Amino acid sequence: MRNFNYSTPTQIFFGKDQINVLSEQIRIFGGSRVLLVYGGGSIKRIGLYDKVLEILKTNDLSLFELGGIDPNPRIESVRQGIKICRDNNLDFVLAVGGGSSIDCAKLIAAGFYYESDPWNLMIGKAKCEKTLPLGSILTLSATGSEMDNFSVISNLEAHQKIGLGNAVLVPKFSILDPTYTYSVPKKQTAAGTADIMSHTIENYFTVVKGAYLQSRLAEGILKTCIQYAPIALEDPENYEARANLMWSSSLAINGLLSYGKERNWSCHPMEHELSAYYDITHGEGLAILTPYWMEYVLNDATVEQFKDYGINVWGLKPNEDPYIIAQQAITKTREFFVSLGLPSTLRDVNIGEENLKVMAKAATKKGTIGEFRPLTTEDVYNIYKSAL
Amino acid sequence: MRNFNYSTPTQIFFGKDQINVLSEQIRIFGGSRVLLVYGGGSIKRIGLYDKVLEILKTNDLSLFELGGIDPNPRIESVRQGIKICRDNNLDFVLAVGGGSSIDCAKLIAAGFYYESDPWNLMIGKAKCEKTLPLGSILTLSATGSEMDNFSVISNLEAHQKIGLGNAVLVPKFSILDPTYTYSVPKKQTAAGTADIMSHTIENYFTVVKGAYLQSRLAEGILKTCIQYAPIALEDPENYEARANLMWSSSLAINGLLSYGKERNWSCHPMEHELSAYYDITHGEGLAILTPYWMEYVLNDATVEQFKDYGINVWGLKPNEDPYIIAQQAITKTREFFVSLGLPSTLRDVNIGEENLKVMAKAATKKGTIGEFRPLTTEDVYNIYKSAL
Repeated sequence: MRNFNYSTPTQIFFGKDQINVLSEQIRIFGGSRVLLVYGGGSIKRIGLYDKVLEILKTNDLSLFELGGIDPNPRIESVRQGIKICRDNNLDFVLAVGGGSSIDCAKLIAAGFYYESDPWNLMIGKAKCEKTLPLGSILTLSATGSEMDNFSVISNLEAHQKIGLGNAVLVPKFSILDPTYTYSVPKKQTAAGTADIMSHTIENYFTVVKGAYLQSRLAEGILKTCIQYAPIALEDPENYEARANLMWSSSLAINGLLSYGKERNWSCHPMEHELSAYYDITHGEGLAILTPYWMEYVLNDATVEQFKDYGINVWGLKPNEDPYIIAQQAITKTREFFVSLGLPSTLRDVNIGEENLKVMAKAATKKGTIGEFRPLTTEDVYNIYKSAL
Repeated sequence: MRNFNYSTPTQIFFGKDQINVLSEQIRIFGGSRVLLVYGGGSIKRIGLYDKVLEILKTNDLSLFELGGIDPNPRIESVRQGIKICRDNNLDFVLAVGGGSSIDCAKLIAAGFYYESDPWNLMIGKAKCEKTLPLGSILTLSATGSEMDNFSVISNLEAHQKIGLGNAVLVPKFSILDPTYTYSVPKKQTAAGTADIMSHTIENYFTVVKGAYLQSRLAEGILKTCIQYAPIALEDPENYEARANLMWSSSLAINGLLSYGKERNWSCHPMEHELSAYYDITHGEGLAILTPYWMEYVLNDATVEQFKDYGINVWGLKPNEDPYIIAQQAITKTREFFVSLGLPSTLRDVNIGEENLKVMAKAATKKGTIGEFRPLTTEDVYNIYKSAL
């Protein structure tokens, strides 16, 4: 197990009607003039938008709006949000939505204190030093942005989708009411589950010896996804299913699974290129790539971990040959994603051979990716190709 | 799953040589005049005492000492610590040791701001409102006090051992270096493991439906204890074993397993009476009582949870009759504790029939205990009796 510094400061208010803490929490963090960041119309359809407006109004909090955040949030939205905050002396950013709205809100909160273009913060030309206080109300179980310090922003012009991690980006509080996810469509429920499972899998397969506890916790999260995603698809208003998926989304990426392990991921950087070039749904890209990546990295050095994965997560019998268990576990993974209605090849999402080379190059422009089995440009290309 | 508010603010510095952050952390929380709270001579034997003194001295931090904290820390020590803090205008409390030193330091930190006798805070006559900032350096994996908001203090005169939970009691930071536990004797390593497992089991068996994720995480912690306690006994300087036990001790009780579930425990209140009357080692008392409690509460309403426990924690075959799996799981639990060298009956720790009735009455003086299966005075007496 490697050394680590644990810090998980986001306050979570989990459960039905926890929105009642909203105005008090905004006040605690010094907010009075609030930028509301949200995506499409779903928060209006479920009445959450009206509820938030009513709460802010009743409590004399001023409201400014930035709606229409895209599923892969754009740097243009960030620039627009910063301008609204500056023009109106805002002092708090409230994201209401899924990871896209929260990620966008994070960079708005940080960009507010940075004089030049906020894209510089994403590409490492400048560092986030300070942010406006930020809270979130979650409506989609997927990215875990509600409790982590990452923001992923796309620059479609530059074909870039970049993830940035910085301790100052972590939300002050997040309200997690599973009933807000009742109306999430099947496609997004499935893709969100694939995202949660991918975060968990990226942490699970590791070169670090003896981070046993973290691996057992990861198995618990994977089993929870496998148990409840089908129930949420079948019965969208099943509270327990939605609650278990929601809390899994936060715990998969708030550090619990990665403390003591490496943090260099494999499938996420590969998927980011797919989204950057084709603007596909992140979770769908992960569902496609993950089993192919598993097949590619399975070898004598990694087979024991795949065996654990097969036995502890998928309930496979322990007495078989490790490679057979590993292969069965990978098949189970792919079949599970397919059973949720997720695509299993790149062609399923209309990606052909045309950009595989350039995407593989882009994914590895800073060097190999992933620590579990470091992937070169050629490796990434091979994985893309196998996933066609 | 029940509603919950997540708050786990303690900063953890985990791993070898993390003590290097000590002076900086004390300064961050405004400390310059420090009360060092510790137990017996073990921190001197391993050189940690000298190391702390050197760090404080090098960094111009003033030091005052309160050593000799008992395994079941006494209210007298708390009074003494408060007096030292007041007489010398101290502004920081640093516990170096196991749960006893940390628990004692917590009540000193809180009692500093309470004018009357600190025992009033334990018995609910007054409420902890504010504390001196508190940090800890952990040397025993057991109570989880390094990351929770509980303090357990004994008043031997009154035959009382009371646990107090209050958000202000949580340490600001804790340094968890597994190498500090290399010299922990077998008996304490075993008893500490029983304590960690008991915290986990108290959270695991639940009346709350659908807190599935939490139960799977609990199984991960139990499997970790089962995996590594024997290794730590056999090979005391095995870093991975000590690291996994140490991090398990924190995660078992920092809220991760209890968020969304009930928090009324069963075995701990029963054990507290044993310690209050006989001053036995807490973890030994828990190791004795837990299997008897399991046998007592096993019934048609609870058997499915015991079945899960048997299959997921002890690897029992799922196709048997649930009662057979449950009974086997309880036997496995008892056998595991015995294999660690822990006692399995009250007579093993020189407790006879003499006080069973009065202890059962004391354990239930505020009403039934535990929510899983609420235990009356008679139930507690029956469990004590079966454990003779």
